[in-house]
Amino acid sequence: MGNKSYRLSDLSRLLGVPFKGDGEVVIDGVGPLETAGPTHLTFLANPKYRAKLERSRAAAVIVDPGFEDVGRPILVSPNPYWTMAKAAQLFYDPPPLDPGIHPSAEVSAEASVAPGAAVGPWVSIGPGTSVGDGTRLYGHVYVGRQVTIGRDCLIYPHVAILDGCRLGDRVIIHSGTVIGSDGFGFAQDNQGRSTKIPQTGIVQIDDDVEIGANCTVDRATFGKTWIQEGVKIDNLVQIAHNVTIGRHSIIVAQVGIAGSVTLGSHVVLGGQVGIAGHLTVGDRVRIAAKSAISHSVDPDQDLMGVPAMPHKQWLRHYAAWLRLPRMQQEMAALKERVRHLEETLARTQNPTKDGSHGNEC
Amino acid sequence: MGNKSYRLSDLSRLLGVPFKGDGEVVIDGVGPLETAGPTHLTFLANPKYRAKLERSRAAAVIVDPGFEDVGRPILVSPNPYWTMAKAAQLFYDPPPLDPGIHPSAEVSAEASVAPGAAVGPWVSIGPGTSVGDGTRLYGHVYVGRQVTIGRDCLIYPHVAILDGCRLGDRVIIHSGTVIGSDGFGFAQDNQGRSTKIPQTGIVQIDDDVEIGANCTVDRATFGKTWIQEGVKIDNLVQIAHNVTIGRHSIIVAQVGIAGSVTLGSHVVLGGQVGIAGHLTVGDRVRIAAKSAISHSVDPDQDLMGVPAMPHKQWLRHYAAWLRLPRMQQEMAALKERVRHLEETLARTQNPTKDGSHGNEC
Amino acid sequence: MGNKSYRLSDLSRLLGVPFKGDGEVVIDGVGPLETAGPTHLTFLANPKYRAKLERSRAAAVIVDPGFEDVGRPILVSPNPYWTMAKAAQLFYDPPPLDPGIHPSAEVSAEASVAPGAAVGPWVSIGPGTSVGDGTRLYGHVYVGRQVTIGRDCLIYPHVAILDGCRLGDRVIIHSGTVIGSDGFGFAQDNQGRSTKIPQTGIVQIDDDVEIGANCTVDRATFGKTWIQEGVKIDNLVQIAHNVTIGRHSIIVAQVGIAGSVTLGSHVVLGGQVGIAGHLTVGDRVRIAAKSAISHSVDPDQDLMGVPAMPHKQWLRHYAAWLRLPRMQQEMAALKERVRHLEETLARTQNPTKDGSHGNEC
Repeated sequence: MGNKSYRLSDLSRLLGVPFKGDGEVVIDGVGPLETAGPTHLTFLANPKYRAKLERSRAAAVIVDPGFEDVGRPILVSPNPYWTMAKAAQLFYDPPPLDPGIHPSAEVSAEASVAPGAAVGPWVSIGPGTSVGDGTRLYGHVYVGRQVTIGRDCLIYPHVAILDGCRLGDRVIIHSGTVIGSDGFGFAQDNQGRSTKIPQTGIVQIDDDVEIGANCTVDRATFGKTWIQEGVKIDNLVQIAHNVTIGRHSIIVAQVGIAGSVTLGSHVVLGGQVGIAGHLTVGDRVRIAAKSAISHSVDPDQDLMGVPAMPHKQWLRHYAAWLRLPRMQQEMAALKERVRHLEETLARTQNPTKDGSHGNEC
Repeated sequence: MGNKSYRLSDLSRLLGVPFKGDGEVVIDGVGPLETAGPTHLTFLANPKYRAKLERSRAAAVIVDPGFEDVGRPILVSPNPYWTMAKAAQLFYDPPPLDPGIHPSAEVSAEASVAPGAAVGPWVSIGPGTSVGDGTRLYGHVYVGRQVTIGRDCLIYPHVAILDGCRLGDRVIIHSGTVIGSDGFGFAQDNQGRSTKIPQTGIVQIDDDVEIGANCTVDRATFGKTWIQEGVKIDNLVQIAHNVTIGRHSIIVAQVGIAGSVTLGSHVVLGGQVGIAGHLTVGDRVRIAAKSAISHSVDPDQDLMGVPAMPHKQWLRHYAAWLRLPRMQQEMAALKERVRHLEETLARTQNPTKDGSHGNEC
Repeated sequence: MGNKSYRLSDLSRLLGVPFKGDGEVVIDGVGPLETAGPTHLTFLANPKYRAKLERSRAAAVIVDPGFEDVGRPILVSPNPYWTMAKAAQLFYDPPPLDPGIHPSAEVSAEASVAPGAAVGPWVSIGPGTSVGDGTRLYGHVYVGRQVTIGRDCLIYPHVAILDGCRLGDRVIIHSGTVIGSDGFGFAQDNQGRSTKIPQTGIVQIDDDVEIGANCTVDRATFGKTWIQEGVKIDNLVQIAHNVTIGRHSIIVAQVGIAGSVTLGSHVVLGGQVGIAGHLTVGDRVRIAAKSAISHSVDPDQDLMGVPAMPHKQWLRHYAAWLRLPRMQQEMAALKERVRHLEETLARTQNPTKDGSHGNEC
């Protein structure tokens, strides 16, 4: 930050939210309440942090409509966190890369690179591939044959985009991620030896998708693996062949999605979740971290566990699990009471049989 | 697909399975029942899909011996899925790479690269290393010193094969995978500070192994980490130092195998499985996805759970877990019944003690 | 091994531990009891392996003070495993790399590379970046702008160290690891669409840290992600934005640590552990493999499970889980006994009501 600045009134206009107070105050960055400096814009996304705002050095603050009386210049937004993100984007530049093709890059004569695209050192681009305007391919990126990359994409160092894959506009792919590796498909003979099923499909990634670092997205066996518009994927995620991930879904780090799974839109998968093959997960389903999905899931469910169950049900089972050792003690005590009842009742019914004053012998 | 074609009679001969019907029909690809085109070969691996076959546009179909009456040209195979895989291989070419050494590659004068090998741009090959005929090293591959790579291997972009490692023939390694990173070995002093144990062993990968994208296979501390013939490994898998994976085993994505584990042959590990260090897992063991193996496993077991137990046992325990909250309610009800019995019995034995008509006082 | 050798008396001096027996014996490597050759030093870290020592071909052995009578030359150490590690370091060289800048590297005119640093082929170094003496950047390493790398670091092929990140001295980073990828931060609008929160912080890695292959360490949203002195991280580990990992902690493979977590010092996380966001984990906490941490943890705890609980408590719960199916059978039997008691008692109290000799009708 620091190399761009805006007056508060300009930010108000650019972000489409009203300001109150001194519109001439100059802002050169965005920061959280605790660390924002005297030229920064901060935000109050939760009223419980009101006290922190009192101590903040920030020049101005984004607030909810109900919290305007904060004694300094404000932007008023119905969604301060969203407005903070949009404001921060105004101050941010991704790593620079000169437009044009670096002399060390290897671009096929049969590839098409838009004049405003930037192709970094040691990038290879295969025949039949096109790269859109404003897109940056940082150093060491490998782009295969017949690949389509849209406009304004950021492809970080060491990414591989293999033959035939298609990326929309404004796609961001972080370092080390592989798009279009072979799906894991083999046939077995009667002695359990595997032979490869060639993977001849592609990966299609739609507009505004972001994929983290060191992920793997396998190409389809036939057809396509498909990541739809607005999906955000964290690091070290595995997307197998023929998976579809619906629009605006969010996949946290180290998730693994097996072959031919279809996720609906606005699905949220917590970290380290696993989804077994060929399942369907409905729209807006939320799966807690570390859960395992072994059956298809209807829309609008919150699931948890290995294997996963509805979150409320899981809480009941977990509470029972926590009481389990005590329950076993209670069971032992109860058995003892029943044994005692049985003895007592036997004595009551046949007083001479068990009594100490018997005269049987 | 599309750039190779065969007559059905040629496929019959190449695949070693008989055909029936018009052997002159020309096939230029393989596809599943639903999407195969009119010049494609399809397959019926499961009789329940017979109805789909009726609607398929495929020119010919691979069937089991019992299912030959399908009204179009056929190949008859005792294992249609296997024959489909072999047929698809006939139509498939991996990404092309010109034989010879790309001018931007850095090949040591003390390395030996077979004339029919293909070394792509920005590949480095260290001294004492040999690369066999027909092997392709795509762009950005790093090959260290004293490495042996056999014939007809495919090493995808951004793979690193570090010093001393040995690969057999027909090995496939997908993008971003690291072969021969250091094992995770440290000694601790009495203050809990770690010092590195140098990792001086190697990784040996035998013939016909395939390893997915962004995997890590650590070199041995001493000796070798060993992946035996025909093993297939999916993406993002961690193989620690001194692990041995037996022949024809299958390791699904995101599995982690700790140091000095020995897997037998034909083992199958589901996704996200973890195996603790120094264990032995017998031949043909199958571990369900997400399980944790904390004890050695005899051959021919199916295991599941964290920690894993035999699959059938796990099902019993899981059924009990599902009943657990109801069981706790039943326990509470049973306690109440026992309390009532105790009271009733006490009244029966000592009617004056608890009775309302007592005259004690 | 094999290209360096020392007399035992030299090793004694270099390692700071006394020798006994023939100090002139020449040692050219270190190996375990079973495989050490006749010119190797071995070690007896556990007295139960004494019999193996008898059969070892090793020229000399590192022993505890109590185990000096082994019939061959010895080094006596209070921590033989530590001394073995230090001895092995004397024989070990990392992959060689000529000092200086390889002609194919792209080093910014505004970068500072120490004369004794080695910069391999196709390494890029951005403006404002400094690289310390003795540091090796192997082939294909990407180093961004304003990065600081200290002395004697080893940065293996295909590592990316992105803008602004700082590494101390003697840091080792294995192949494919990404330092400074964007944190996973988004704001949602009222329709569940995500917009990116620019990640403007850095990653700071202190002295003597080692990070395995294909890890991801995200930059902070604001401020820094911080890996403190002496931390050792295995392969495929995810460290999210704004995480702090305290001094000398050990993180095993495939662990995932969510955003803003703070780990104390000397923490040990087993393989595939997950830690939810914004938690604090105290000093010397040890978490068993595959566990999930969903609450903050006080110092000096041993935890296990999903979600994790103290290890001893987990053992009790797990034992109860193992007895659970039998417990359900016992519950059914107990219910039957109670039912029988109730019937018997009812007959006892009202003999005509349920008795077979009743005369009601």
